[in-house]
Amino acid sequence: MSYLKERILKDGVIYPGNVLKIDSFLNHQIDPAVMKEIEREFYDYFSDRKITKVMTVEASGIAPAIMVAAHFDVPMLFAKKKKPSTLKDEDVYSADVYSYTKKTTSTVMVSGAYLNEEDSVLIIDDFLANGEASMGLVKIVRDAGAEVAGIGICVEKSFQPGRERLEKEGLDVYSIVRIESIDSENQKIIFKEGH
Amino acid sequence: MSYLKERILKDGVIYPGNVLKIDSFLNHQIDPAVMKEIEREFYDYFSDRKITKVMTVEASGIAPAIMVAAHFDVPMLFAKKKKPSTLKDEDVYSADVYSYTKKTTSTVMVSGAYLNEEDSVLIIDDFLANGEASMGLVKIVRDAGAEVAGIGICVEKSFQPGRERLEKEGLDVYSIVRIESIDSENQKIIFKEGH
Repeated sequence: MSYLKERILKDGVIYPGNVLKIDSFLNHQIDPAVMKEIEREFYDYFSDRKITKVMTVEASGIAPAIMVAAHFDVPMLFAKKKKPSTLKDEDVYSADVYSYTKKTTSTVMVSGAYLNEEDSVLIIDDFLANGEASMGLVKIVRDAGAEVAGIGICVEKSFQPGRERLEKEGLDVYSIVRIESIDSENQKIIFKEGH
Repeated sequence: MSYLKERILKDGVIYPGNVLKIDSFLNHQIDPAVMKEIEREFYDYFSDRKITKVMTVEASGIAPAIMVAAHFDVPMLFAKKKKPSTLKDEDVYSADVYSYTKKTTSTVMVSGAYLNEEDSVLIIDDFLANGEASMGLVKIVRDAGAEVAGIGICVEKSFQPGRERLEKEGLDVYSIVRIESIDSENQKIIFKEGH
């Protein structure tokens, strides 16, 4: 069993409504040992693509994304949720991302200066559920004329439609851990085989 | 001259009002080579303190903080700007942080589960100007009964009062790069010696 699965079983907390809280090691407090496993696994899987950039969205995707970027020795670019004062509308690529937990739509954006047609981009995120954030990043990469080389996810909720939406776009999704189901009542997590 | 200074001179863009934009390698697109220099330098300086945790605030502090935490082999904890649905008010330590650029006050918070009296915390951030974010993190660490072991800053604007405020609190501030002045008119950056 992978280290990340073990940690989910040991330290994950299940809340009503299939909410899995793993903020003691993945997306609030972050364990570097988990990050190192993640960066190695993504590197092994994606190393044959000619990755020129790793991309994520703030905030909880940043830690795994910079570790993966350091392993590939390419820049990491994170999409921002608020437009910095130094960026003008015409200089950004943006996408609307709906949050099913917060029930709000936010716009994420990156500076047009850091993506171009030569780029082959590996998208990294901590969670994949409905795929809204990843789909937003895919749109941004494609708007820039760049290519999505693949999508690396730390924890995929396989019972939600994110992976299916991305695969329909012809994208290769690799998840370190796939979760088949979360049983709030009995506090059980069932993993799905494969990546 | 350090790699980070060289990159600031080469790729930094100066905007009116002493605004230095270095988002091509530090806080939007992030160059892992810069991160590796930063993590080594902070490790060299702070390695004699018994650091148990590295702390920052989302979003642009996360990349340097996780790299430094990986070097120290301790967890990284980032303060969030929005309270996650899985956290209750009584379970968090929080601080108000005023943004001089955005002219708004926001509350940053961490889960009380991840800080305690045993902790010796290294605070990391990308920029230090007025010191609002760092002062907020210091308050959070102290509210938890933990100790601030030091503050590591990538780029300090030494002409703004952040360092002085932190030093008045008895804190040890180490900045990789200190900027004495930014001259928007002549597009010049003057560095300050020391760290």
